[in-house]
Amino acid sequence: MGIEEFLASGNERLDMQLKFTAEIDKMTSVYRRTLLVSGERRENDAEHSWHIAVMALLFKEYCIEEPDVEHAIKMLVVHDLVEVYAGDTFAYDDKGNASKEAREKEAADKLFSQIPQEQGTEIRSLWEEFDAARTTDAKYAACLDRLQPFLHNTLTEGHTWREGHTRREQVEKRMKIIKEFMPAVYEWVDKNLDRGIEKGWLNS
Amino acid sequence: MGIEEFLASGNERLDMQLKFTAEIDKMTSVYRRTLLVSGERRENDAEHSWHIAVMALLFKEYCIEEPDVEHAIKMLVVHDLVEVYAGDTFAYDDKGNASKEAREKEAADKLFSQIPQEQGTEIRSLWEEFDAARTTDAKYAACLDRLQPFLHNTLTEGHTWREGHTRREQVEKRMKIIKEFMPAVYEWVDKNLDRGIEKGWLNS
Repeated sequence: MGIEEFLASGNERLDMQLKFTAEIDKMTSVYRRTLLVSGERRENDAEHSWHIAVMALLFKEYCIEEPDVEHAIKMLVVHDLVEVYAGDTFAYDDKGNASKEAREKEAADKLFSQIPQEQGTEIRSLWEEFDAARTTDAKYAACLDRLQPFLHNTLTEGHTWREGHTRREQVEKRMKIIKEFMPAVYEWVDKNLDRGIEKGWLNS
Repeated sequence: MGIEEFLASGNERLDMQLKFTAEIDKMTSVYRRTLLVSGERRENDAEHSWHIAVMALLFKEYCIEEPDVEHAIKMLVVHDLVEVYAGDTFAYDDKGNASKEAREKEAADKLFSQIPQEQGTEIRSLWEEFDAARTTDAKYAACLDRLQPFLHNTLTEGHTWREGHTRREQVEKRMKIIKEFMPAVYEWVDKNLDRGIEKGWLNS
């Protein structure tokens, strides 16, 4: 049964917004490599996006420039939306990352044209700001997007690293933005990279 | 293996914040009555919280007073956190709702004491503002918290209503805040209440 039967509100904007709301629920079936903290299963994009949005309320004190937390949260809740069509690209998948930009741009064109134009433009610009990681708020958001899976990996015996035969330098490269933008948090990351090597979860 | 092994950052605040981040990941195993739009399974609190946070970017034009979207999103991402300890209470479970306030207060005491005090106070006050549904932003947030499961129910053949042998007036009561605060959206709700009755998903 299609959603159309239940729209026809007589208001074209509202119909688009309701349909888009239903469409993005597909984020719940885009699975990431990272396990939940419980280790039970992989987490999905909806869960990940929510988790880092809450984290934004907690970690700003470690940033070298003060971010606007509210703006960062807006970016975080939409930063993975294009994956509804483009799928999740594993951070250490070089081949996947080579085609990621083109795939995500196409997904963005398709997705953000489904809502009223000014709303599509706003959400797309939040996503583009996040993706470029150049503004203070986007740097904060990018750090959280990397810190959360690092924490999950640490708490699930390095699951993703082991699965990907990951080398320490690959993780260091991914965590570089934390090193630069949240150095006190990076100290913690660095200690757990040592532990990951000790435990054999990461290749040196 | 406990998380403690991986903390010891030498920074007590950071340790608390990382541990809290891991703790709230339990939101992913608090299941609601509502199904995902796909109908595959119930949605969990993390997914629901993310979904309505994105909705906050889309529906403000229907409010009778203009909400601060960014503040509403902050409330939405934390509004169900206490359910990590208190569990989800089904909207139409009268008995569960009678004990809900006490259970959630106890959960809030336990949860929000796990982070630095001023952060616990901030998140608790967002949750309390949401719960009271008196400010403009909290009314908007409450409307989204009701509109999203209504949409999901409509798209999953009234799953939750059928399961609970729900009567139209129970849903109307729950949707009253949408009727008052987002009347144009309520027109759509009302049409789909008619359809729910026609299809036998709701009892009249």
